[in-house]
Amino acid sequence: MKTRILSHFQRVIHCNLGNPQVLGQRPITFFREVLSLCDNPDLLNKDEARALFSPCAIRRARRIINSIPGKDSGGYTSSRGIKSLRQAVADGISARDGYPSKPDDIFLTGGASAAVNMMMQILIRSHEDGILCPLPDYPLYSACIILHGGTMVPYNLTEDRGWGLEIFEVKRCLEEARSAGLTVRAMVVINPGNPTGQVLSITNQEEIVEFCRKEGLVILADEVYQDNVYVENKKFHSFKKVARSLGYDEMDLSLVSFHSVSMGFYGESGRRGGYMEITGFGDDVKGQIYKVASVTICPNIAGQILISLVMDPPKLGDESFETFEAEKEKIHSSFWKRAKTLEKAFSSLEGVSCNKIEGALYFFPRLHLPSLAIKTAESEGVSPDVFYTHRLLDATGIAVVPGSGFHQASGTIHIRCTILPDEDKIAAMIPRLKAFHESFMNEFRGSEPYMNDLRR
Amino acid sequence: MKTRILSHFQRVIHCNLGNPQVLGQRPITFFREVLSLCDNPDLLNKDEARALFSPCAIRRARRIINSIPGKDSGGYTSSRGIKSLRQAVADGISARDGYPSKPDDIFLTGGASAAVNMMMQILIRSHEDGILCPLPDYPLYSACIILHGGTMVPYNLTEDRGWGLEIFEVKRCLEEARSAGLTVRAMVVINPGNPTGQVLSITNQEEIVEFCRKEGLVILADEVYQDNVYVENKKFHSFKKVARSLGYDEMDLSLVSFHSVSMGFYGESGRRGGYMEITGFGDDVKGQIYKVASVTICPNIAGQILISLVMDPPKLGDESFETFEAEKEKIHSSFWKRAKTLEKAFSSLEGVSCNKIEGALYFFPRLHLPSLAIKTAESEGVSPDVFYTHRLLDATGIAVVPGSGFHQASGTIHIRCTILPDEDKIAAMIPRLKAFHESFMNEFRGSEPYMNDLRR
Repeated sequence: MKTRILSHFQRVIHCNLGNPQVLGQRPITFFREVLSLCDNPDLLNKDEARALFSPCAIRRARRIINSIPGKDSGGYTSSRGIKSLRQAVADGISARDGYPSKPDDIFLTGGASAAVNMMMQILIRSHEDGILCPLPDYPLYSACIILHGGTMVPYNLTEDRGWGLEIFEVKRCLEEARSAGLTVRAMVVINPGNPTGQVLSITNQEEIVEFCRKEGLVILADEVYQDNVYVENKKFHSFKKVARSLGYDEMDLSLVSFHSVSMGFYGESGRRGGYMEITGFGDDVKGQIYKVASVTICPNIAGQILISLVMDPPKLGDESFETFEAEKEKIHSSFWKRAKTLEKAFSSLEGVSCNKIEGALYFFPRLHLPSLAIKTAESEGVSPDVFYTHRLLDATGIAVVPGSGFHQASGTIHIRCTILPDEDKIAAMIPRLKAFHESFMNEFRGSEPYMNDLRR
Repeated sequence: MKTRILSHFQRVIHCNLGNPQVLGQRPITFFREVLSLCDNPDLLNKDEARALFSPCAIRRARRIINSIPGKDSGGYTSSRGIKSLRQAVADGISARDGYPSKPDDIFLTGGASAAVNMMMQILIRSHEDGILCPLPDYPLYSACIILHGGTMVPYNLTEDRGWGLEIFEVKRCLEEARSAGLTVRAMVVINPGNPTGQVLSITNQEEIVEFCRKEGLVILADEVYQDNVYVENKKFHSFKKVARSLGYDEMDLSLVSFHSVSMGFYGESGRRGGYMEITGFGDDVKGQIYKVASVTICPNIAGQILISLVMDPPKLGDESFETFEAEKEKIHSSFWKRAKTLEKAFSSLEGVSCNKIEGALYFFPRLHLPSLAIKTAESEGVSPDVFYTHRLLDATGIAVVPGSGFHQASGTIHIRCTILPDEDKIAAMIPRLKAFHESFMNEFRGSEPYMNDLRR
């Protein structure tokens, strides 16, 4: 492989990582104040603390500490998490959905990954158990399925329809898997999507609910980007809300919803906090989940506190409310701007098609590269997406992830890019991206026509 | 089963749980100050913070925050943990052992349970893989082995020799397992012991090292009670130190040492922080461990920070040093007193034998109960240890754990008791325990002689 020279740009621009705070996103002040006080409850009794912490952070921290057995934040908790915090999460879900949620259905977890890993461990009994997963996929799912010895049953999202999920395709995959002797136990849906950035329409969600109910599949709903929606015509709806609004209750459908503190406007990834809401399972299954959770004893307390804050943020009348809303709005509107800017920039590139970035923190543009580029990649022993991303990094310092890391459809070339670099960095990167891409295309075009012409 | 009446004592005395802070143990001030500052690094730039935090906590927090990519405590970290904190842990190990430790051998983890679970996942390929574990056991080990589909190969600790570990017994179990077609891959040693409270002699540790080296077994050294030793004639020695002092290096022996923030004088169980030090494995194995660790992305940052503080506490000259030492000494000497008091009290009971409490937070006394008590238990459908502990709880509010929860030797009756209730509670509980035990023995004695006479 060509030696990569990194000297002609000053810094790498990381569009590869879904790691908000390492890329400069500021934490929410109220959340950090409460965490800081809960870590050191002695502060709650000190007058000097009033100069450093908002009154409602002090009140909240006191309430949390008083609700913990032992009245401190250092003991083991229930393997499900602290009851008062599960109640706060359940209340937050009820308020979000307009349908009731119960603390007994909530497991607090060390982030969504730990929760997904646990559910896969419980669902998968052998290689004959299959789990439906979207392609392109977030690699957590394939990793957990392999780790626990199951079989991934991939279904394709339809790029030409805005990465929509088409039930006939899922049905086809389910039937194929069943014919091959697999017992398909569950269907993973990531909404908003990673790496694809789409938000499912409510009609689409209704179809999924009907399908899973009919086929007896558990819905594993990855809803960690519920606070990352950027389009006017779509909203986040939890699968539980969709199911209940169709009139289905716990008897009709088994559903797990995953959420975490890692994304949204909070971006507290390294804190490892999250929840799963488990509905439509018998007490025996919940007992087994509890047993597996108890192997690692309990989720970390700071993460438990943080997910309770995410689901129960400051309200109108709280001293922190305005600051909180302003911080949230600032991050959200900046995400919105970055998404528009990047979508426009990538769409303007020759041979590149880019779906609307509706939600999450990513997009997954498709590249139509000249055949000489593809041949050169082959001769260097790498796939075309890897070849392009290395060239891009070499020339510009822009780091993106090759689409093959997300099981892109065979014969296609994609990259995954985040919207996380700040607006200034994005503004600086776009001219470099355009110049690189033009020069890349010119270098490899040979006698081929312009790729955008080719696609017409 | 008899209805239990809880009205005649005021509160349950929890001798059942290894959960220090929920039972009243105070956290170490310096640790909490640093955590609190790292949670809210804005405080580091505020003058008012000097009234609330010690100068060395501020310095330490600043150093930690500056060493984290992104300079905040909210991002994902490496799946191994933050490099500067791994360095702090490695330096702490080097200082403890007098033999070098490398940050590349350190994985920071969400507590020791998560680390043990991960190693079992990696070591166990099928039901034919066996892991040697001590009996009585800490149930984490059996749980993880079952969960990952392996076979537990138990070896008995010798109660009559202070719960010592006898190599001929381990050898016997190994050979039996091999004859049965198992591939025995590793040997778990818990030192200081849980639930048994013994500290291994250095000679014993040397025998274990020689044995595992000769037999090609990985040593899985549970060393989470390294800061809980209460006898003058014994000290904690890590297995790595023992191996190195015998002249064995990485080429001779594969060794994993587990430690956590949960026990010791810090008792920060709910924080979920810990490390494993992995020596004597090839880079391929370390790569696999890294891969499994990366499924749940990274350990929580607060836990990472805390284990670095445990291994790199305030030093002479730091403003917090005296407070730190005083807090540590207070907890340690109180543990020592409680251990002596409880050991004496249990040993004085008719028909009860109790080994010296040398370390950890537990002891595992043996009960010799009258045959009528055993028959009555049988008629109530419970084992004698469960019968006794229920009766004890009913009559006195003292909660202990039946020995069958720890796989006590067949035909014996034990209870596991912690030394965690504070000195006042222990002082209050002992007369109740004695009165209960006397009345229990009198109730069931029938025509049997006094049990202590019986044993002579």
